[in-house]
Amino acid sequence: MTDEFVPVHPVPLLIVISGPSGVGKDSVLNRMKERGLPFHFVVTATTRPPREGEVDGVDYFFVSREKFASMIDNDELLEYAIVYEEYKGVPKEQIRQALASGRDVIMRVDVQGAATVRKLAPEALLIFLTAESEADLVARLHKRKSETAESLHLRIATARQELKRIDEFDYVVVNRNGRLEETVEVIQAIIRAEHHRVKHRKVTL
Amino acid sequence: MTDEFVPVHPVPLLIVISGPSGVGKDSVLNRMKERGLPFHFVVTATTRPPREGEVDGVDYFFVSREKFASMIDNDELLEYAIVYEEYKGVPKEQIRQALASGRDVIMRVDVQGAATVRKLAPEALLIFLTAESEADLVARLHKRKSETAESLHLRIATARQELKRIDEFDYVVVNRNGRLEETVEVIQAIIRAEHHRVKHRKVTL
Repeated sequence: MTDEFVPVHPVPLLIVISGPSGVGKDSVLNRMKERGLPFHFVVTATTRPPREGEVDGVDYFFVSREKFASMIDNDELLEYAIVYEEYKGVPKEQIRQALASGRDVIMRVDVQGAATVRKLAPEALLIFLTAESEADLVARLHKRKSETAESLHLRIATARQELKRIDEFDYVVVNRNGRLEETVEVIQAIIRAEHHRVKHRKVTL
Repeated sequence: MTDEFVPVHPVPLLIVISGPSGVGKDSVLNRMKERGLPFHFVVTATTRPPREGEVDGVDYFFVSREKFASMIDNDELLEYAIVYEEYKGVPKEQIRQALASGRDVIMRVDVQGAATVRKLAPEALLIFLTAESEADLVARLHKRKSETAESLHLRIATARQELKRIDEFDYVVVNRNGRLEETVEVIQAIIRAEHHRVKHRKVTL
């Protein structure tokens, strides 16, 4: 019998927010940052050009194709993918360091990438973010002025395929229109609950 | 493709709050009732005499040993146990009806009873409530004026055995002294999170 009546040793979690393009992953993560939640927010590396207002090293690491290729060669990425002809990848060392410091790590990854994370880190916590309806997702994508008719069509077709992979995830959260706070609160509840699981999700990379 | 982009159909949960005697199961459940949470709170049948302030049909169904024996014979109980020489049992039909009406069902059961519930309803959500330390549990039991030195000793010995069965539970929550609200909030977060699991906990009795 130890001094602590029960050994409760919360283990830092690797939390993956995924879901179809346009579903609001960035909005959810930005709102979590604004709330000052004590997570490490992974900064993804990408070869795509910054959108208006995006800051290098904060929203993404904007890197050249040459730099990205060397990160792949040096096995510096947990996962990477070609998304609409641009590379996106998650730096491994950044995650290792944050977990080692005892902080929960949270990151946004597309659905294919989430499957890769599951393979490399089976104990990762996978959350599938979705829209209320297909019409709602289309409306969200229309708001992005950067979308062409062609890229919109491609994203919807991809979303349909991605929805079929929901069984590979632990949780599903609907990001309802105009209810971002509720979405964030549900995700916080999931993370809080997971810290109380008897079987820990200990991630080693 | 249905109208709903993702089929999110929350299934009512069977939630079991368990843990050693004196850890605060009643306080937690009473606080949840006071908060007006939309659960069905199971009323346990018991042969022990009411403590001061306890109301029949609200805190427990206080029944005779003869009545309890007939409930056992008629298979009316989900589980029952002899706890400190008195019977306690959970009426099955009450749970069936509440789940059928779509409500989450929450109940307090001792550790041995929780194991029985797991066998009969593998999809039940089992939460182990514990104290910060053994000293804290002893202090809590001392506050109950109904405890004799002998029954106190028995409860502590039992608690030590019960702590070894924590792996049979899904979650563990420490009910810290003077922090009942926090305990209740953690349990609420667990329940909220469970409603978003991709794999539902569908209970059939």
